[in-house]
Amino acid sequence: MRIIITGGAGFLGRHLCERMLSLGHEVLCADNLLTGRNSNIEECEQNPSFHFVRQDVTAPLRIEGPIDAVVHMACPASPPDYLKFPIQTLEVGTIGTRNMLTLALAKEARFLLTSTSEVYGDPKISPQREDYWGYVNPIGPRSVYDEAKRASEALAMAFHRRYGVDSRIARIFNTYGPWMRANDGRVISNFIMQALQGKELTIYGDGSQTRSFCYASDLVDGLVRLLMADSDSGETSSQSKEWGIHYPVNLGNPREQKIVDIARIVREMTGSSSQTRFHPLPADDPKIRCPDITRARRLLGWEPKVRLEEGLASTISYFRTYYCVLKIR
Amino acid sequence: MRIIITGGAGFLGRHLCERMLSLGHEVLCADNLLTGRNSNIEECEQNPSFHFVRQDVTAPLRIEGPIDAVVHMACPASPPDYLKFPIQTLEVGTIGTRNMLTLALAKEARFLLTSTSEVYGDPKISPQREDYWGYVNPIGPRSVYDEAKRASEALAMAFHRRYGVDSRIARIFNTYGPWMRANDGRVISNFIMQALQGKELTIYGDGSQTRSFCYASDLVDGLVRLLMADSDSGETSSQSKEWGIHYPVNLGNPREQKIVDIARIVREMTGSSSQTRFHPLPADDPKIRCPDITRARRLLGWEPKVRLEEGLASTISYFRTYYCVLKIR
Repeated sequence: MRIIITGGAGFLGRHLCERMLSLGHEVLCADNLLTGRNSNIEECEQNPSFHFVRQDVTAPLRIEGPIDAVVHMACPASPPDYLKFPIQTLEVGTIGTRNMLTLALAKEARFLLTSTSEVYGDPKISPQREDYWGYVNPIGPRSVYDEAKRASEALAMAFHRRYGVDSRIARIFNTYGPWMRANDGRVISNFIMQALQGKELTIYGDGSQTRSFCYASDLVDGLVRLLMADSDSGETSSQSKEWGIHYPVNLGNPREQKIVDIARIVREMTGSSSQTRFHPLPADDPKIRCPDITRARRLLGWEPKVRLEEGLASTISYFRTYYCVLKIR
Repeated sequence: MRIIITGGAGFLGRHLCERMLSLGHEVLCADNLLTGRNSNIEECEQNPSFHFVRQDVTAPLRIEGPIDAVVHMACPASPPDYLKFPIQTLEVGTIGTRNMLTLALAKEARFLLTSTSEVYGDPKISPQREDYWGYVNPIGPRSVYDEAKRASEALAMAFHRRYGVDSRIARIFNTYGPWMRANDGRVISNFIMQALQGKELTIYGDGSQTRSFCYASDLVDGLVRLLMADSDSGETSSQSKEWGIHYPVNLGNPREQKIVDIARIVREMTGSSSQTRFHPLPADDPKIRCPDITRARRLLGWEPKVRLEEGLASTISYFRTYYCVLKIR
């Protein structure tokens, strides 16, 4: 399979590039390195089946030859990033998604959009099922990300309905693992870096809000299954057509964790003596967020396997190395 | 004032072009005539201050000289239209809005987005205030319109926050009046045409769902006030900065009408003996929709003046003429 992965130099993109290469596929990675990093793909670049092009996918991509799949992952994905690059975030989710769908249409390729649990906004129900419409502020600071992703989903569905593009939509919940950026503002990387440096662990709000954290290898396993699933995969009920493989699929870990508990586990596993410090919640920060993964289980036979403590061990180990490298330099 | 009006050959666009010309302004109307009509602007074209360019605003507009305001109205606006042109609807709301914001930024012009009550989706509260986030299906057939408009709002706010663009957002509720297309699928034009032709009046659902109908001249009055308001206009409360003129303003008539009652009034005013026929509700059709116009009253001193019966009289008269023309041809 010859596959384009946009945003392949980002945290999750890097994991997917690596997995697809290990499965024997040819990977064309397009990334403008706005938030992705060259260092993420250094290992991939040793593989002759990996090709990197530094390009903003809001401009057309020139790709010679056939393409079997387009995976559109490019987007600043952590709040500090998309608040720093609001226009770029909106553009890659609208113009970028349109471009990549047009490319998939031209190449008769599958299309996989990595959407987000943020389309549920501040949900009024928990866990969230894919047929919940969400509760999202269209004009708040975070709307640059949330609305870009909702528009991306609308675009993917429109290209499927109008042109028959074989599109799929993954709604990705919080994910963690090696190759996260130390400074991208996600809670697990924040906690680990703070604990390793003996700094205070910063908690927004009172820490009672929950998140579900999925380990990167589990998440990538779900993405690969979604991408590879037959295009006629679907529910066996009477709703089969309406809720087939082209409709969104939640990918995430349904095991809810309170932020304060994560902080405690990280402190214990790193052997850190860091204290905890509480800060006010940022605007529109969702209070609860937990995936209902019934659809992923039924359609893809997928569920997360890696326990939080295992995943944290690998992640802490990665950050320990990263932090040592920083100290040596 | 030198003003660009995109979608100026549409129903509401035509009314705004006419009003701005009558106020002595110079109007540059850009429209690709996908759903707009040349016949709408025939009268405007008699005025030397009116200039029409047939262009899709998803491509850059070349405009020489200074511009004081960009009013971005272009978008298929009735359900049959945006279901017929799903990709174009998404593109004009994302790429088109980005282009027009970039133009406003370059020309240091004001920007007015005509958004929609559809951003509230199938609302859980009624009437809807501007700080209600709405309940919208991101992947249904109507999402091409709803999510394009939500993304447009997010873009306008992002350009305001990041670049200081003097943007304004009108959330327009159902509007009616002369120059509506007879066949665009809106309820009032449907009813009037059916009544004049002695056909059955088609009601979707049981007709108990309500809509608020604002007469076009009232609506345009609100748009002009919003466009002309000082950029520091805002609430006088402690929320002044957060909810100033750059935040969305509902424009619509808060007087709720049941669909069955509209059908009855139209039948009476046309003297028609048409019967009523009930059809199933289309997917995601909102059950209630009524604007809270407190903000428009306070910020703009605006509220609708034209009674439904008055507005219907003018509209029926317009359609009578239109229908006669059709018969003669």
